[in-house]
Amino acid sequence: MLPFQTLLTINKEAAMPVYQQIANGLVRLIRDGVIKPGAALPGSREMALLLQVHRKTIVAAYQELFTQDWIETIPRKGVIVSQRLPEIKPRTFKAAARLPAYAGSTGFAYQKPRAMPSAAARAGEFRLAINDGFPDYRIAPIDLLVREYRSLFHSPAIKRYAMYGSSAGPLSLRNELVQFLTDSRGLNIGPNNLLLTHGAQMAIYIAASMILKPGATVLTGDPNYFLADMTFQQLGAKLVRIPMDGHGMDVEAIARICKRKKPDLLYIIPHHHHPTTVTLSADRRMQLLELIHQYRLPVIEDDYDYDFHYSSGPILPLASADHGGNVIYIGSLTKSLATFMRVGYMVAPEQFIQDASVLRRLIDIRSDNVLEETLALLFRNGDIQRHLKKSVKLYHERRDLLCQLMEKELNGLVTFRPPAGGMAVWTRFHKKHPLPAIAARAATHGLFMADGSNYSYGSHNHNALRIGFASLNEKEIREVVAILKKVG
Amino acid sequence: MLPFQTLLTINKEAAMPVYQQIANGLVRLIRDGVIKPGAALPGSREMALLLQVHRKTIVAAYQELFTQDWIETIPRKGVIVSQRLPEIKPRTFKAAARLPAYAGSTGFAYQKPRAMPSAAARAGEFRLAINDGFPDYRIAPIDLLVREYRSLFHSPAIKRYAMYGSSAGPLSLRNELVQFLTDSRGLNIGPNNLLLTHGAQMAIYIAASMILKPGATVLTGDPNYFLADMTFQQLGAKLVRIPMDGHGMDVEAIARICKRKKPDLLYIIPHHHHPTTVTLSADRRMQLLELIHQYRLPVIEDDYDYDFHYSSGPILPLASADHGGNVIYIGSLTKSLATFMRVGYMVAPEQFIQDASVLRRLIDIRSDNVLEETLALLFRNGDIQRHLKKSVKLYHERRDLLCQLMEKELNGLVTFRPPAGGMAVWTRFHKKHPLPAIAARAATHGLFMADGSNYSYGSHNHNALRIGFASLNEKEIREVVAILKKVG
Repeated sequence: MLPFQTLLTINKEAAMPVYQQIANGLVRLIRDGVIKPGAALPGSREMALLLQVHRKTIVAAYQELFTQDWIETIPRKGVIVSQRLPEIKPRTFKAAARLPAYAGSTGFAYQKPRAMPSAAARAGEFRLAINDGFPDYRIAPIDLLVREYRSLFHSPAIKRYAMYGSSAGPLSLRNELVQFLTDSRGLNIGPNNLLLTHGAQMAIYIAASMILKPGATVLTGDPNYFLADMTFQQLGAKLVRIPMDGHGMDVEAIARICKRKKPDLLYIIPHHHHPTTVTLSADRRMQLLELIHQYRLPVIEDDYDYDFHYSSGPILPLASADHGGNVIYIGSLTKSLATFMRVGYMVAPEQFIQDASVLRRLIDIRSDNVLEETLALLFRNGDIQRHLKKSVKLYHERRDLLCQLMEKELNGLVTFRPPAGGMAVWTRFHKKHPLPAIAARAATHGLFMADGSNYSYGSHNHNALRIGFASLNEKEIREVVAILKKVG
Repeated sequence: MLPFQTLLTINKEAAMPVYQQIANGLVRLIRDGVIKPGAALPGSREMALLLQVHRKTIVAAYQELFTQDWIETIPRKGVIVSQRLPEIKPRTFKAAARLPAYAGSTGFAYQKPRAMPSAAARAGEFRLAINDGFPDYRIAPIDLLVREYRSLFHSPAIKRYAMYGSSAGPLSLRNELVQFLTDSRGLNIGPNNLLLTHGAQMAIYIAASMILKPGATVLTGDPNYFLADMTFQQLGAKLVRIPMDGHGMDVEAIARICKRKKPDLLYIIPHHHHPTTVTLSADRRMQLLELIHQYRLPVIEDDYDYDFHYSSGPILPLASADHGGNVIYIGSLTKSLATFMRVGYMVAPEQFIQDASVLRRLIDIRSDNVLEETLALLFRNGDIQRHLKKSVKLYHERRDLLCQLMEKELNGLVTFRPPAGGMAVWTRFHKKHPLPAIAARAATHGLFMADGSNYSYGSHNHNALRIGFASLNEKEIREVVAILKKVG
């Protein structure tokens, strides 16, 4: 007889009832070929003695196996493993040998993603961290949001949207956003031009996967927002990097490429470009709009932090101009709230939005629509608009403080231009101070910072990072600069 | 001089300051070629008179345009449109002509998704709706969750995870899930075998897009969960439908196909199959595990409602057996909470999870990690487990009631087998009662129901739908059956 007392492990503290544990253990032994079809199992009395449990427990376990067709009862022979089961050669006698199923890698081959895991995932473990430009969740109206969320959940209206709803997102929030985007960006759209997504990154992924086929060409900045670049590469596209200067992307270079062969997509951040924070100049905007018309050039305009401007008023997006339906405009509410509140949107012609909504459903059925209804309410009440005003004022002060301190303390180590808006300063370190070494030394002082690898393209290494000021208060900004001075 | 008073519309009630509206309006006119580079603008006094605003407003608007490089000041000539701007031929003189940018379709061609928008999106507009098997949000511990969310947001611990974290999801929730999946499903895994996703659909999409190339072959049920099928098709795969009977998928048919040519993926729901609710029998499970080993067959095991079982204990998933690292196991917490709380997970070998996490970040940076931390807390306190127990008891009663009523009232109209678990009854309508007609008549009684098109494959039409009982209370179940009787 098999040593059931060692093959079956019982844990009386576990949430799963003991009889179920025994049944499951026996199923494993049968399935792994340790007990063969037709083999007799010990009677309930005998098994109870072996396993040191009450006989009723064994009866229940056998009943379970019987119901699930693993065993049968043969008169005079007692309980046997079902003879209808296929016979397989035993893989092992040790129960522990089940472990490897998930220990190693897959048995089959698959397409590995081209991007790498992010080092920034660990930033939360540090006392202090420099991010790319996150909002300060400490000033976000989360209490208000949670309160309204709860009260919406208890309102009779929840019946209308708790379980069902458009893949494009609730009409209420789309309507509020139409109003907001009209007021703030001069967009001329209706709710059917809007798809809500679980963050702007999802909007980039969806738009790109509709536009790009493997082998496609994407024009992108040198440097450019790395998650967008990685997304295009993941979808099989080839990147062609367009130089960036103090006036934004070199539109002449785009024109030259278009003349040779129309690219499949232009990805552009005309307003506070990521990472350089440069804004595309007026003349280049006009030239670009001409090119878009002339070549019917598909464009993703990523306008992730339009709402944060400190100097002159923000410049209207390309999407507000006559672009012949070629500009897919992407924005985010995450920057206006907190990084953990992922709400993004895509603006596009109606048919494109309808198609994108179908794809969105296959990727991620939808967002939390109670949350989206709550956000619609906060827009309607002006709470988000008030919060934005408050944030802009505070981030303006933080930008000024960071720039003053860097100017004074980090002279000779870094160069930068104070950004007109946004949440970060694009900071280049001098060649003789390679960022990986700086970042490693900063870590020993409890400061996480990027090592610049996100903006290092083959031979071209910008040796630069974005220093996000929005999420740091005065004390933290001073601390960050002090550490950079120490390790530089 | 241009008729600025009609070309520039000013809305004094708008959130945007009037000077900004004027500046933006002028930018549009310049950008659209209505005002040419070098053209003179009226002086501030004259323009103020034209537009009926204070002169200071015009000065501010011009200042704005000057800062943004749209205009320049020439001595003696006054304000002119910047001569550095490219000259473009005017597209139109009417401001309203900007409308079409987003009105029609895109200027460029793109790949349309193969799936269709869902009719169920509109279900919320009906007095009553039959869904595929959703949980009842009315009994979900949302109040508790919201309370704990808020208190986590105010705890010092939030600093560790509010802004950063692994793309695989917080370790805390992964650890709790490891414990839960070990206790309930006998999985033998660690936290590095788990990727948290924004709902199970995202896990299906990510796993499938790693495994499938265009032209790949996917074995799937006849019938099968339609969103999974659509996802595989969207990724360019060809579906090969495997017959389903009262014991689950026909594993012999799978064996025959494997013998000819190894398929690229098997998608299987062995437990309460969607839509048929059938559970794969013991002998077929063993045969299937043999095939998986023999061919290193990649498998997605979708186990979306394992936790809801009413008759015997649930059968262990394939993922708990020795499968050589070939089974990607996907589950959901959404079914245990509410449809608007989208939390799914993928269990796979460590390397696969690491790669899937990278892809997850490109598709959707991450979920709300404060929510995920809150769920970890609810698991730790046993709140989710208690809620599951309560739900199972209630849904069990609802299943019984629905089956009794259908047996009694819908005889001759439908056939069904009471499911051993899950949240829905797979209900076939007799051929002489085509579902589209039934659904149309039900709508006139305020009841939304699917028209069966999700399970109609070319020549093979199941003329069936899932009647979800979990989200309906006693009164609603009686009402649904009464309407079906009336329209049948």
